[in-house]
Amino acid sequence: MDQAAFMALALDQARMGFEEGGVPVGAVLVGAAGRLLGAGRNRRVQQGDPIAHGEMDCLRQAGRLRSYAGTTLFTTLTPCLMCAGTIVQFGIPRVVIGENRSFAGNEAFLRQRGVAVTVLDDPACHALMRRFQAERPAVWAEDIGA
Amino acid sequence: MDQAAFMALALDQARMGFEEGGVPVGAVLVGAAGRLLGAGRNRRVQQGDPIAHGEMDCLRQAGRLRSYAGTTLFTTLTPCLMCAGTIVQFGIPRVVIGENRSFAGNEAFLRQRGVAVTVLDDPACHALMRRFQAERPAVWAEDIGA
Repeated sequence: MDQAAFMALALDQARMGFEEGGVPVGAVLVGAAGRLLGAGRNRRVQQGDPIAHGEMDCLRQAGRLRSYAGTTLFTTLTPCLMCAGTIVQFGIPRVVIGENRSFAGNEAFLRQRGVAVTVLDDPACHALMRRFQAERPAVWAEDIGA
Repeated sequence: MDQAAFMALALDQARMGFEEGGVPVGAVLVGAAGRLLGAGRNRRVQQGDPIAHGEMDCLRQAGRLRSYAGTTLFTTLTPCLMCAGTIVQFGIPRVVIGENRSFAGNEAFLRQRGVAVTVLDDPACHALMRRFQAERPAVWAEDIGA
């Protein structure tokens, strides 16, 4: 599978989250050989869990790994500082981001710490977030601590 | 309750974690008026959950809050970068740390971003971590991505 296909899986997760009434951010973790290790989505609303951002839920679903060497984390939205700190702490070497227009994320923080970051600027990821931000601004503000 | 009493609650959580076979780090979140908002402990081993550090589990237990203004997070061990990033992202203004001898944490990262940090250098917190690190080095290495 190529980059676009993995991002499509992350976007599927985000859409599921939106349908559930949640924050529509999805993520997938992919191993060195292109194997899907985990998929997740923001579940703040669904589980009443403030730490369940898309990236965090994905890492939880992937379970305990001895090492994140060779992995790539695909996320529909550029990471907040919780998720960016986690990426660095876990030693995830590569992050592919759907879009960074609807949120000022932490690409510089990641790159300064050696993480390879690619931003796809995917219109479908962006459109879903814009719709969510317009329809449920209070939930969005809560999720990013704004 | 004073600082020492809240740290004692966090240490109780850490000891519960140790008894369960887990990583013995505990945390409590305290509101502006001194009300206990949540308590948690590292549950990597117990729940197979790599993001369930003590601080993260505590924030999950506290549930959705509209604001963390006025809160203090007590943790038996200085935070890793996942937990430090979360503290900044959530706007938690104050962190009280049990000890920072058994792990090189992120006090400077927190202070640079305006978080008030107190390190108690508590011998009981330190002794518990030292025992864990000596008895279960592989679990400890996995938990901090070493």
